[in-house]
Amino acid sequence: MPTDATAVPHPIPSLPRGFRLAGVKAGIKHDASREDVTLVTSDLPATAAGVYTTNLVFAAPVAYDRALTPGRGFRGIVINSGNANACTGVRGLDDARGMAAAAGTALGVAGEEVLVLSTGIIGEFLPMEKVTAGIAAAARELGGDDRAVLAAARGMMTTDTRPKLTGAAFEAEGSRYTLFAMAKGAAMIGPKMATMLAVVLTDAALDPADAQRLLTEAADDSFNCVSVDGHMSTNDTVLLLANGAAGGSTLHGSGLAACGEALRKACGSLAREMADDGEGATHVMRIEVEGCRDREEARRIARTIADSPLVKTAVHGADPNWGRIVSAAGYSGVAFEPAAVELRLNGTLLFRGGAPVPFDADAVSAGIRDRRETLIQVSVGQGPGQIRFFSSDLTADYVRLNADYHT
Amino acid sequence: MPTDATAVPHPIPSLPRGFRLAGVKAGIKHDASREDVTLVTSDLPATAAGVYTTNLVFAAPVAYDRALTPGRGFRGIVINSGNANACTGVRGLDDARGMAAAAGTALGVAGEEVLVLSTGIIGEFLPMEKVTAGIAAAARELGGDDRAVLAAARGMMTTDTRPKLTGAAFEAEGSRYTLFAMAKGAAMIGPKMATMLAVVLTDAALDPADAQRLLTEAADDSFNCVSVDGHMSTNDTVLLLANGAAGGSTLHGSGLAACGEALRKACGSLAREMADDGEGATHVMRIEVEGCRDREEARRIARTIADSPLVKTAVHGADPNWGRIVSAAGYSGVAFEPAAVELRLNGTLLFRGGAPVPFDADAVSAGIRDRRETLIQVSVGQGPGQIRFFSSDLTADYVRLNADYHT
Repeated sequence: MPTDATAVPHPIPSLPRGFRLAGVKAGIKHDASREDVTLVTSDLPATAAGVYTTNLVFAAPVAYDRALTPGRGFRGIVINSGNANACTGVRGLDDARGMAAAAGTALGVAGEEVLVLSTGIIGEFLPMEKVTAGIAAAARELGGDDRAVLAAARGMMTTDTRPKLTGAAFEAEGSRYTLFAMAKGAAMIGPKMATMLAVVLTDAALDPADAQRLLTEAADDSFNCVSVDGHMSTNDTVLLLANGAAGGSTLHGSGLAACGEALRKACGSLAREMADDGEGATHVMRIEVEGCRDREEARRIARTIADSPLVKTAVHGADPNWGRIVSAAGYSGVAFEPAAVELRLNGTLLFRGGAPVPFDADAVSAGIRDRRETLIQVSVGQGPGQIRFFSSDLTADYVRLNADYHT
Repeated sequence: MPTDATAVPHPIPSLPRGFRLAGVKAGIKHDASREDVTLVTSDLPATAAGVYTTNLVFAAPVAYDRALTPGRGFRGIVINSGNANACTGVRGLDDARGMAAAAGTALGVAGEEVLVLSTGIIGEFLPMEKVTAGIAAAARELGGDDRAVLAAARGMMTTDTRPKLTGAAFEAEGSRYTLFAMAKGAAMIGPKMATMLAVVLTDAALDPADAQRLLTEAADDSFNCVSVDGHMSTNDTVLLLANGAAGGSTLHGSGLAACGEALRKACGSLAREMADDGEGATHVMRIEVEGCRDREEARRIARTIADSPLVKTAVHGADPNWGRIVSAAGYSGVAFEPAAVELRLNGTLLFRGGAPVPFDADAVSAGIRDRRETLIQVSVGQGPGQIRFFSSDLTADYVRLNADYHT
């Protein structure tokens, strides 16, 4: 059930049973008219799993959450945008714990039962008075209607132009479960992961180890296959809460597989939306690489193509400059036989056997220009390794947005 | 003797004895008013060395030259711009040999005594009639005056805004030698090497193995420490011709060291000029990394910072957003202790001990805005590994230039 990528999803996906959300304006963002504190709560203690940035320089909330997940007994997630609480040292860790404690107080639970997410500017201390007041206000607004869901999704946005929401339903052993996911991310998006936060909620019951495995696999296929600018964030986090409020026993076997499939679809949909909402983007690049020895080699080639400013600007200019794509594959560090490479752009074969294939450049250019998605397909041999990767083009608007984000 | 980076160098550096150059307009470039064929000849048989792209997808002239160098007995180099002769298969190899043969005929030497360089669009076949006519015309124009040198330098340019020339003199065992170097490169510049061609000429006598070692070391310190967009070209080549026309014996020991030092300075000067002339650049980024376990780790951190679109746009916007720099170091793949990191921007300490250091943001911003060069200094520990790396900022003009280079 992928959401419409060009607007607020309609209808807003349903929340799983036993969850409530809120988003409020706490004045952390420069623009006081925007939500910047989001609270998520589960009426029942939930199993939690997390997948985090692999950046050596990671933010305080990442350190806090990583120590607690996977585990049981979680009652909420508190999120702020406008400030990443990264590169903030010991005081930053205290502030992350302070956010959890404030949310615990507001929800009537222990601080250690609350996970924490932050996103925004790096290297500034959190304005804890505003954050704490925002958390208390959010606790009074918790709900499950569309308004609450949209406010919560907006409360985690930074340069995103729209909230990113998706939902799915699955059945297992006669019970019907709901899965809901929301995310933010439009730049500092580089594998592994992205300057992205995502929260996935389900009313199924999961063992912590199973929840962690399903989430890791889903993130690997989605958030680790998207890049806007190749810059890996200090804050990337995906959290899953599974509260069992739908009833039914803890999932195993085929039930677990159904849950994993729903999770994979939801994360895939959100990852594509991040590329589509990439700062200044006019095109989504869908890069399919196949014929590699393994999946990681395919990922490496796809990522190198995805991150090349020359490929990204060519797509922006609707320029079928396939030499830039082939040469990017060539410096990816993956060994392959150039003569075995085949390259297709929006389905048109452009390069095979080490030499160009004649093609109608005007038609291919028009095809790029007239579609939001540009499909780049690269086959490098006969191996089983393949991947699907999303990126966005590089535009003058990306430069403008990032040349003065801070000041 | 670094050249002025903002204009044609004045005075034009002198040619070493026994070399003549020419550059002519052969109609390979779309703009017929620009030189696009350059010929270099040595009156005496010269030792040649080459350093080449490590891209798996390499152009026909790279394959041709790589098979011949290092070696003795070379009489010339033929260069075309406007067409890279890359991804052109067997026909491309024939065309590279054809260029060498045409130059040999024009110079009255064997084709195998001539090396070949091409730069420009990838994936189109060379217009061999125009190339051959251009070579014949260039042979009639060979000379050593400023006009000939500038025309030759322009004949290898693509999107460069100015010729890149430098010269040096050195003494050894009582003899005085001259070294001259010219290069092109303004984008598709990514380590290792760059979409760059460079030709270095000296009237010293060198053994081929020594020439190769000196050139490899000089390139490693210069062209492999520069990145404009991180995209490694199919055509990167640095060639050295040493013809011994100054007299004196073949260099060894301290004489060789003096030659190596001159070579290193010349290549360093040209590499910095490439970053300075990076497409659309408004700033050169000079990135100094130290305290690593070894030089390759320092290079990896520097390159990751150099290639981050978020760092590059922050510099363009004169934004002291140091969190982007620290986080780029953090995802470079090099292991270090974040708490040991120190970051300085144009000399001002911004980050130490895992936490921000208070600073005057307006003053640091003004310092970036008012200077062409932005100095980024990162220390990650106590190790001996260090490097100096050049890059350019990312601007809307880079995007514009590359969104429609092809069409």
